[in-house]
Amino acid sequence: MTAFHTLRWVDDSLELLDQRLLPARLEYPRFTNAEAVAGAIRDLVVRGAPAIGCAAAYGIAVEARRLRGQSTGQFDAGLKQAFDVLGASRPTAVNLQWALDRMRRQLDGSAGLDNSARANVLLIAARTIADEDVRINRAMGTHGAALLPDVCCVMTHCNAGALATAGHGTALGIIRSATSAGKKIEVIVNETRPFLQGARLTAWELQQDGIPVTLIADSAAGHLMGQRSIDAVIVGADRVAANGDVANKIGTYMMAVLARRHGIPFYVACPLSTIDPDTPDGRAIPIEERSTGEVAGYGGMRWAPQDIRICNPVFDVTPAELVTALITERGVLDSPSPAGIRELLGR
Amino acid sequence: MTAFHTLRWVDDSLELLDQRLLPARLEYPRFTNAEAVAGAIRDLVVRGAPAIGCAAAYGIAVEARRLRGQSTGQFDAGLKQAFDVLGASRPTAVNLQWALDRMRRQLDGSAGLDNSARANVLLIAARTIADEDVRINRAMGTHGAALLPDVCCVMTHCNAGALATAGHGTALGIIRSATSAGKKIEVIVNETRPFLQGARLTAWELQQDGIPVTLIADSAAGHLMGQRSIDAVIVGADRVAANGDVANKIGTYMMAVLARRHGIPFYVACPLSTIDPDTPDGRAIPIEERSTGEVAGYGGMRWAPQDIRICNPVFDVTPAELVTALITERGVLDSPSPAGIRELLGR
Repeated sequence: MTAFHTLRWVDDSLELLDQRLLPARLEYPRFTNAEAVAGAIRDLVVRGAPAIGCAAAYGIAVEARRLRGQSTGQFDAGLKQAFDVLGASRPTAVNLQWALDRMRRQLDGSAGLDNSARANVLLIAARTIADEDVRINRAMGTHGAALLPDVCCVMTHCNAGALATAGHGTALGIIRSATSAGKKIEVIVNETRPFLQGARLTAWELQQDGIPVTLIADSAAGHLMGQRSIDAVIVGADRVAANGDVANKIGTYMMAVLARRHGIPFYVACPLSTIDPDTPDGRAIPIEERSTGEVAGYGGMRWAPQDIRICNPVFDVTPAELVTALITERGVLDSPSPAGIRELLGR
Repeated sequence: MTAFHTLRWVDDSLELLDQRLLPARLEYPRFTNAEAVAGAIRDLVVRGAPAIGCAAAYGIAVEARRLRGQSTGQFDAGLKQAFDVLGASRPTAVNLQWALDRMRRQLDGSAGLDNSARANVLLIAARTIADEDVRINRAMGTHGAALLPDVCCVMTHCNAGALATAGHGTALGIIRSATSAGKKIEVIVNETRPFLQGARLTAWELQQDGIPVTLIADSAAGHLMGQRSIDAVIVGADRVAANGDVANKIGTYMMAVLARRHGIPFYVACPLSTIDPDTPDGRAIPIEERSTGEVAGYGGMRWAPQDIRICNPVFDVTPAELVTALITERGVLDSPSPAGIRELLGR
């Protein structure tokens, strides 16, 4: 168990660990309406595809609780707006839509009950999504750990850890599971500019767990692959298309290209909820562009010249051909293909 | 002409533009002894292989001036120490040794003259190295500009500009020459963590000249190569081995691998002084590791967790097979090979 909670339900409201402040401070701001939760997702208080899904589900739950004293019409209208604002908070991760779709089915299924009962149904549904997420990550961890040598060095990018999920993590979950199984895993983490999720979150998470970790600049990844033995690259995913193309944090594509050149297996840890059968391939995945301020500096410090043009795409697409395997809760899919993914999803 | 001087001789001393403060402030601290110049090189007040060479030459000149009132024995002993301290200031760039070797020959050739005359010889020699550097960069600029389409987009990494040389620049010199020749060049520059030479220096330099420039995170380079038409990658070099392997700023190797995947020409702008026939290949080039603090944060701000292990190699080696051509003052060498390099050097 990690010593922190990415999200937790306390006093009938949602608390999110403010990941913008890590590793300097652990603060849990409290959220009591959907608009505020959407703002927290947009502003990266919480990030990581599975964690975004869980937060959005809880965003519906807090809103339902807030509206439960109102008329049925107001309750329905308010929740419709909540689904809209949460659904628009981030474009790339598909788990957000997946979680909201599940919540919407629960809401529809509870028609006829009074508002308080429906709010309860939605809270239970959000908790279920979060609890399932942890179980799924543990299953993924077991499948993924089996792929790693007993003593090995793994490179990762961004944060696909407990902080990106309801707990345990996807890519870092595999590393945690392997470590628990007695394997000696050493991790190299790219700092992951511009938002530094690798430096601030992954390095901190692994340090908390006592797993050996070395931090590098993103641009040093290729050099290190050539200099020392790296046994695997493992990353998370924000959306996997029906053909196996993977959208993940900007820089993931570069890691995959370099891993291929150096003959290093490139694994993508993704719960089935991250696979979107309605997205045919990577070209159909919307790539979010964020504020230029993220590249111009960090945390209030600016180092770029004033008035400089900046381009800040925060995801990229790794083509399926560069992916050695997808690691899911249902098992490992080698060389992902449309047919393999259909079979994995049971379609 | 650029609106700044990377280095200049003022009032019998060396002034260096303090590049650590750019783009926020233009300050020219003054140096009057070799030890201080070596410190400035070590601490990145001045950086870039050709500029380091010029600064080291001037470091000998200021030291000779300082010692000229002393005995011949003291003068010789003091200068010997100056060569040692300057020679040890940075390990990777070969121009440093090249410039010091030239200065040593001038010193040896002036044996028999009095100290003041010898100090004058050394000052003239340092000025000659700097003046030649600008002429060489202009010649390289002309050769390189001919390779670029009339309208094109060039990606560059780090700063191989006027700030990395005595003036005009190597990679950016080519872009300047092409622009002066009426070509419409747009530049994409990687921010170049950890020291941010791309964001702070290249973006600023090009902005000063009115050349369109877009700043990106290093990890976005691969994504942009796939998204839009990039016609060439041009970088500088800190050392080119006898077989054409290129040591340059960390991240250069990743750009070369990605450029190859996307069919984009990868050019290395290097004066002949950067080619080291005594280094057989990239494995023989010492790769400097710098302070872990550079990766832990920037400019006094730390974002990495305390006590985290950090690895900070600041150069990498791009194998010759990934280099489309070397661009030198003597012309363009396609697909660099040992034989081609020997011929280029006239050996």
